[in-house]
Amino acid sequence: MRLRLDLAYDGTAFAGWARQPGQRTVQEVLETGLATVLRVPALRATCAGRTDAGVHARGQVVHTDVPRAAYDLVARSLPHRLAGVLPPDVRAARLELAPPGFDARFSATGRRYAYRVSDSPYGVNPLRRHDVLWHRRALDVPAMNAAAALLVGEHDFASFCRRREGATTIRTLRALQWTRDADDLLVATVAADAFCHNMVRALVGALLTVGEGRRPVQWPGDVLAARVRTADVHVVPPRGLTLEEVTYPDEVTMATQARATRRRREVSA
Amino acid sequence: MRLRLDLAYDGTAFAGWARQPGQRTVQEVLETGLATVLRVPALRATCAGRTDAGVHARGQVVHTDVPRAAYDLVARSLPHRLAGVLPPDVRAARLELAPPGFDARFSATGRRYAYRVSDSPYGVNPLRRHDVLWHRRALDVPAMNAAAALLVGEHDFASFCRRREGATTIRTLRALQWTRDADDLLVATVAADAFCHNMVRALVGALLTVGEGRRPVQWPGDVLAARVRTADVHVVPPRGLTLEEVTYPDEVTMATQARATRRRREVSA
Repeated sequence: MRLRLDLAYDGTAFAGWARQPGQRTVQEVLETGLATVLRVPALRATCAGRTDAGVHARGQVVHTDVPRAAYDLVARSLPHRLAGVLPPDVRAARLELAPPGFDARFSATGRRYAYRVSDSPYGVNPLRRHDVLWHRRALDVPAMNAAAALLVGEHDFASFCRRREGATTIRTLRALQWTRDADDLLVATVAADAFCHNMVRALVGALLTVGEGRRPVQWPGDVLAARVRTADVHVVPPRGLTLEEVTYPDEVTMATQARATRRRREVSA
Repeated sequence: MRLRLDLAYDGTAFAGWARQPGQRTVQEVLETGLATVLRVPALRATCAGRTDAGVHARGQVVHTDVPRAAYDLVARSLPHRLAGVLPPDVRAARLELAPPGFDARFSATGRRYAYRVSDSPYGVNPLRRHDVLWHRRALDVPAMNAAAALLVGEHDFASFCRRREGATTIRTLRALQWTRDADDLLVATVAADAFCHNMVRALVGALLTVGEGRRPVQWPGDVLAARVRTADVHVVPPRGLTLEEVTYPDEVTMATQARATRRRREVSA
């Protein structure tokens, strides 16, 4: 039987989601915790967004397949037991049986990230320093939003992706918008059907360059149109990035969505 | 000349505001940083709310007296320079010449704290674990607010204060109110003219006891009326407590306010 878990984590002390030998990763900590609580030798967890080292999550979604007998032994007490074994920098805020056909990665129809920056001359609010980047120069939010508007839509984002032989870099960017909150905190909302590697942090890097006035508003759009990765686009540090939400279709279309996505990725990969 | 600084800090790694030999305190870190930047051998900082070990601040207010010649040497670049020498868990978000008669402690007309608790069975959001307390039992917000309403107003808060010979424990509690945000985060807003030692954390402790159903709604009011400190009132941990704001009168009444407060405290102390 398949479980769906909704995870939040502080990525600071993790070498990202994906298991790597000798590294502390979210996948390894979660799989170990689940195996302990379910008393199975091992299990495998699949996530919707493979976050890099240092990237946080408030709404990461994961699925894992567990033997029914193991699940029945703990059942309703599983969330409590899991909270008891997970370290304080990761928690499962929701845990339930997955609907039929659910696949955390391939059923997902959208991912929403937030990137947080403070341009206060006095530094970042100390209570937010783990998930907010300090940018020492003042940022022009209207200019960044004008530049961002030229990037929204379905495009080939090759200019903002780490190149991987053969894989498609066409994505539908649904939202890219900055707001300035109190406390000199700027938040970029970045939503798409899916992102290629480094894409959010490269988009944010291009917009910060506009925001501090070093490039004109049209520049990120020109970079996009060139469809070539360039060293002019600075990939911002992971600290400011949080995976906020993953969206899924209703249960009826869930299995169809997973099949369609898997087919599309295979054709393009 | 007198400077006013508005400070934010993550109290986790501080043994509170006040200097203590061999301890890392906010006062010591700030005074050392200011002396370095102003190139004076030493100076003294006075704060509005002497926070305990582990307590955070978003709006602590401090004054310090500096020689005019030392100030003039750095002047406008002082905020930047100070940000450069302070550690990342403390920052001065505002720094200006104090108005005439200003005293961070004695001019203050009010202090507002927030206490943050999560009663999620899954633990605290990892990105907020430094300033949110995890309470393992579900909390009844309407019951806590009904109990809180019985405490608001001018009272002798001896039952909620650590006893100090001779000092008055009469305070005007202006607000004590819980709200439940998203993400199972409960926030208590606690405002008064001033607080005696441990008062916010004792008030919150009494309300949590009501919130989890172990005491009736009337109980904190009964404790207040008894005017005797009791071991039944649990002082909650500092981690959830943040000094959010200190309020001051307009400049004209500033000096008068400082003189009046100083006189009142001296009479009562």
